[in-house]
Amino acid sequence: MIDIAKEELKEEFSDYGSGSVGLAQINAIAGDIEYNSKKVLKYIIHAQNIGLDLVIFPELALTGYPVGDAILRYPLLADTNMKWLNEIAKLTTKTIALIGFLEPANDKNNKFYSSVAVLGEGKVLNIIRKSFVDKNYEFNDCKYIISSDNSDISTINVNGIKYAMLVGEDYSCENKFSGQNFDIIINCSASVTYTKKEQCKFDRLSALSQKYSAPLIYVNQVGAVDNASFAGLSAVFDKEGKLFARARAFDEQFLIVNPSKNLGRIYPLIRGLELMSEDDDKFSLDYDSDMERTYNILIQGIKDYFGKTGFKRAVLGLSGGLDSTVCAVLLTDALGKENVFGISMPSKITSDTSKNDAQMLAQNLGIGFTQAPIKEMFDTTNNCLQKLFADVEQNWDCRYKKSFTPDNIQARSRAMFLWGVSNEFDSCLPIATSDKSEAYMGYATINGDMSGGFAPIADVTKTKLFALARWMNENRPQKNAIPQSVIEKRPGAELAINPETGKPLIAEDALMPYEFLDEVIWRIENKHQSYDDMLNSEFLYEKSHKVTPEQKQQWLEKFYRRMATALYKKSIMPPYVIVDSPSYNFSQPITSGRINYKSESEEIIRAKLQRIF
Amino acid sequence: MIDIAKEELKEEFSDYGSGSVGLAQINAIAGDIEYNSKKVLKYIIHAQNIGLDLVIFPELALTGYPVGDAILRYPLLADTNMKWLNEIAKLTTKTIALIGFLEPANDKNNKFYSSVAVLGEGKVLNIIRKSFVDKNYEFNDCKYIISSDNSDISTINVNGIKYAMLVGEDYSCENKFSGQNFDIIINCSASVTYTKKEQCKFDRLSALSQKYSAPLIYVNQVGAVDNASFAGLSAVFDKEGKLFARARAFDEQFLIVNPSKNLGRIYPLIRGLELMSEDDDKFSLDYDSDMERTYNILIQGIKDYFGKTGFKRAVLGLSGGLDSTVCAVLLTDALGKENVFGISMPSKITSDTSKNDAQMLAQNLGIGFTQAPIKEMFDTTNNCLQKLFADVEQNWDCRYKKSFTPDNIQARSRAMFLWGVSNEFDSCLPIATSDKSEAYMGYATINGDMSGGFAPIADVTKTKLFALARWMNENRPQKNAIPQSVIEKRPGAELAINPETGKPLIAEDALMPYEFLDEVIWRIENKHQSYDDMLNSEFLYEKSHKVTPEQKQQWLEKFYRRMATALYKKSIMPPYVIVDSPSYNFSQPITSGRINYKSESEEIIRAKLQRIF
Repeated sequence: MIDIAKEELKEEFSDYGSGSVGLAQINAIAGDIEYNSKKVLKYIIHAQNIGLDLVIFPELALTGYPVGDAILRYPLLADTNMKWLNEIAKLTTKTIALIGFLEPANDKNNKFYSSVAVLGEGKVLNIIRKSFVDKNYEFNDCKYIISSDNSDISTINVNGIKYAMLVGEDYSCENKFSGQNFDIIINCSASVTYTKKEQCKFDRLSALSQKYSAPLIYVNQVGAVDNASFAGLSAVFDKEGKLFARARAFDEQFLIVNPSKNLGRIYPLIRGLELMSEDDDKFSLDYDSDMERTYNILIQGIKDYFGKTGFKRAVLGLSGGLDSTVCAVLLTDALGKENVFGISMPSKITSDTSKNDAQMLAQNLGIGFTQAPIKEMFDTTNNCLQKLFADVEQNWDCRYKKSFTPDNIQARSRAMFLWGVSNEFDSCLPIATSDKSEAYMGYATINGDMSGGFAPIADVTKTKLFALARWMNENRPQKNAIPQSVIEKRPGAELAINPETGKPLIAEDALMPYEFLDEVIWRIENKHQSYDDMLNSEFLYEKSHKVTPEQKQQWLEKFYRRMATALYKKSIMPPYVIVDSPSYNFSQPITSGRINYKSESEEIIRAKLQRIF
Repeated sequence: MIDIAKEELKEEFSDYGSGSVGLAQINAIAGDIEYNSKKVLKYIIHAQNIGLDLVIFPELALTGYPVGDAILRYPLLADTNMKWLNEIAKLTTKTIALIGFLEPANDKNNKFYSSVAVLGEGKVLNIIRKSFVDKNYEFNDCKYIISSDNSDISTINVNGIKYAMLVGEDYSCENKFSGQNFDIIINCSASVTYTKKEQCKFDRLSALSQKYSAPLIYVNQVGAVDNASFAGLSAVFDKEGKLFARARAFDEQFLIVNPSKNLGRIYPLIRGLELMSEDDDKFSLDYDSDMERTYNILIQGIKDYFGKTGFKRAVLGLSGGLDSTVCAVLLTDALGKENVFGISMPSKITSDTSKNDAQMLAQNLGIGFTQAPIKEMFDTTNNCLQKLFADVEQNWDCRYKKSFTPDNIQARSRAMFLWGVSNEFDSCLPIATSDKSEAYMGYATINGDMSGGFAPIADVTKTKLFALARWMNENRPQKNAIPQSVIEKRPGAELAINPETGKPLIAEDALMPYEFLDEVIWRIENKHQSYDDMLNSEFLYEKSHKVTPEQKQQWLEKFYRRMATALYKKSIMPPYVIVDSPSYNFSQPITSGRINYKSESEEIIRAKLQRIF
């Protein structure tokens, strides 16, 4: 009997009898065909051993998905996946295996089909090609993947049951089904997870099974590829459209079902994945319903980024602030406490509370910890720079002499320490702790806190991070690992003293209240609102705070000004996990920062044009 | 008479009589509709004043192209360009203006047409929509731009001449033309320039005019948008397909022609733009034919990145090496010598030659210059790090104690200086001097020489850079600005001493000969060759050097290993100019680095799979 460790299998075997099917929800490594093929074969052998009729893998299971332009640049990739497929085929017996692979379109150079091979009895019995390639899709598949021109649905017969095969978004091609005849529908997919998308997809699949009075089996990929997360959640619906089996989210799993007999098990859904997008009409600080999903996406993202690139250890600065604290907890949970090292790097501005909070957090988590003050680094750099500035000033009559230059030296000295540790210790990545609110505002130092090999929380806004910190304190096995004062204090980089208060500058004083800032981001990403839309409607923050129209206008103007100049900072942000769907692959030229986000009346436009005469 | 400065107009007016047309080859700023609209109106007024029949602008002239996902996120962008269009229309008189703009598809949410408006007599006379939206296109237009379903070619009548209108790639839709009747073809375009593409495009346009016996007017955008370059080169062909007018490359221009009378002027082509891709079958070190094009793309790229983001000044480290030297010359030519400051930042390894070369270069170019040794920075950082490493070692038993940690401190100390100057002086960007060969190999220090606000030469390989340095020494008005010794010495980062020679480590010893390395890159990008393809065919380098099969294998293996781990470094490379077309928007997940670039035989695959049983 093939050796698949229990925890790899993650399914207690139930003998559901004839017509049983295994759903192999695997976490493929994009591009690593040998790894993926071996994993596929392991599950096939297991399925054969326990006498299943059928074992089903996700779309493009052999190459992993996505591999991007590597498809075009390395034709060997497609060749190799064909070779492995053919060799796997030879090892199949009675159990039929359905495997997603990349099929070169022989008549078209550099074009491919996303196909599913039907393997059994030692050979490739059939190949089914995807018909519908969505040109709006995140990963620009339409650059390489072409649609099959077969408009009929493909079917296969296994032990007297007729299965209809759909690859990926083919389930949205209603016309494929007309006049066809089948018992069960199968959908092999590699479908990225979005905020509030999963239930919509389930509703569609359920409606399909209901409409055609046939059970539907949906097998999806799990795991993260760079910033993209796949949730898994493979599922089976009965012919009334009722869910009767579902695999776990964010976890590799081999789920056994019998769709003819409605046998299978529904594993509990992670909270947040049941949300529907219609719930989402107003900005809210009540993130609670989305916390479990957020946490799990972040953990899978960190784990897979490290695991798939071969890094093992993380080193990060612990400032005692919210961002680095949340990062430390996530890294601990994703990589293990023995693989995380936190360094408190105080300057003269750093408060005792901050130092204590950093140390207490490290203690609570059990991660490595030390303190490395940056005073010497700062003094030396600052001295060298003062001399240098005097020289440059001879040529350039535009010196600022403001505090942000020395402020940034502090952040950069810290990054110097982290990259040093990363160089000196094996398989170690330094962590960039920037959050989404600050990334939008460019409120982060290049080569400073923005710098690292990975940025776990760069798609999580500050208000959501507060919620996440509270949630983790309540829901992790170890309660209250995050010191209460971290959650209670107002965020600030502790790089500068506010001349008005004599105390460290608070980020909200430099920017605007985070509640307000995060709602602006939310309105832009979700509602595509303009400056004027926002000026003329009430913000959540305004319900509990008096904000004058001038103040609101000033914040909004600051937001757009900073967002435009932050485009170039965002372009060099390290890889990160996407948590909020509207962030997906958003790309805008850096040189297009002069967009006017305010509406202008025809009268003003006319006057501006008249001035040209 | 409207005030367009002579150098803005860049055309000596010739009175070509009735039927004269102005080709407004403008450099639009993506997203800055006000700027683009005012520029458009200026040219319209000028065309009216000199009595032209028609003035033609590029595709999407009002929004600039591309603006990317900003189209979806800021619906105001499309609204605003409609408003400006309508107001411009009111100011037109007898001269007809054809202007590319973004037209919301009213029946489809978040979808747009790329349209050309026909303005005249104070109103919008007609709107012509693009029919063919290429889904392979670099900028993923098909996410937002839909095809018009009008299969007939649209025509407009101006002063008794019937013009057929094509938007962008519509010229490739042959079926549009069938049974239609027109005198002259117009193509409004925003077509990015590729290596060896321009002549192919001209051949196609020429063939079209010949086939339909009609002169063809092609108006293209000029300028750079982040990494994308538009060459301009607007052109007119007579009805025999012969070119009789062409605007300059990489320069805004208003070109006046009379297509009915074959009147117009052909401005000289920049060398390299006449090349055809079939020339390109073998790797060659004879870059000479492509130097003028390369230089001009780099200059336009730097100028427009700075100009369009609002930066004015550049600061860079001058090591006396090739990369920083070429960057300094390019920046001087693009931004003006008064806006460039070079800093020599020697360490104890830096040779006197290097220091002298840096200083002499700065003197020759007339840019700002000073010397700022990094010894103090290095010593302080190294001391602090040694203490820190001892602490970390308590937890992690995987310390390297190799020289690359201190080596990297040197590169990072230099970046610290550059970012300090950038912070302290107004509108100043620090420059990353990494070249393409080193970027592929990850042979650059993160937060060190890889770090900056812009990376001018990150798409130029080392051997091409040598050629460029020689070319600039011969072809810039000031001859031999680059000291001969910079071109003659073998490149090395001067970060480390080679234990074998006792001298600074030479890059080629650490990597492989650049000639060989650059051919590997060339074969991957242009020929999509695999490891085995390369192993089994002769390299140019092998014609003049004895290379054992073991040595070749070792270099290739090093190449693939380094390329895979460099994927994550490349992801945080600052914005740069794309010079070689195969680099266009190449994207591959960082976590897909485990691709096996070697072919495997069926036997080996079989054996590996058998081991699973």
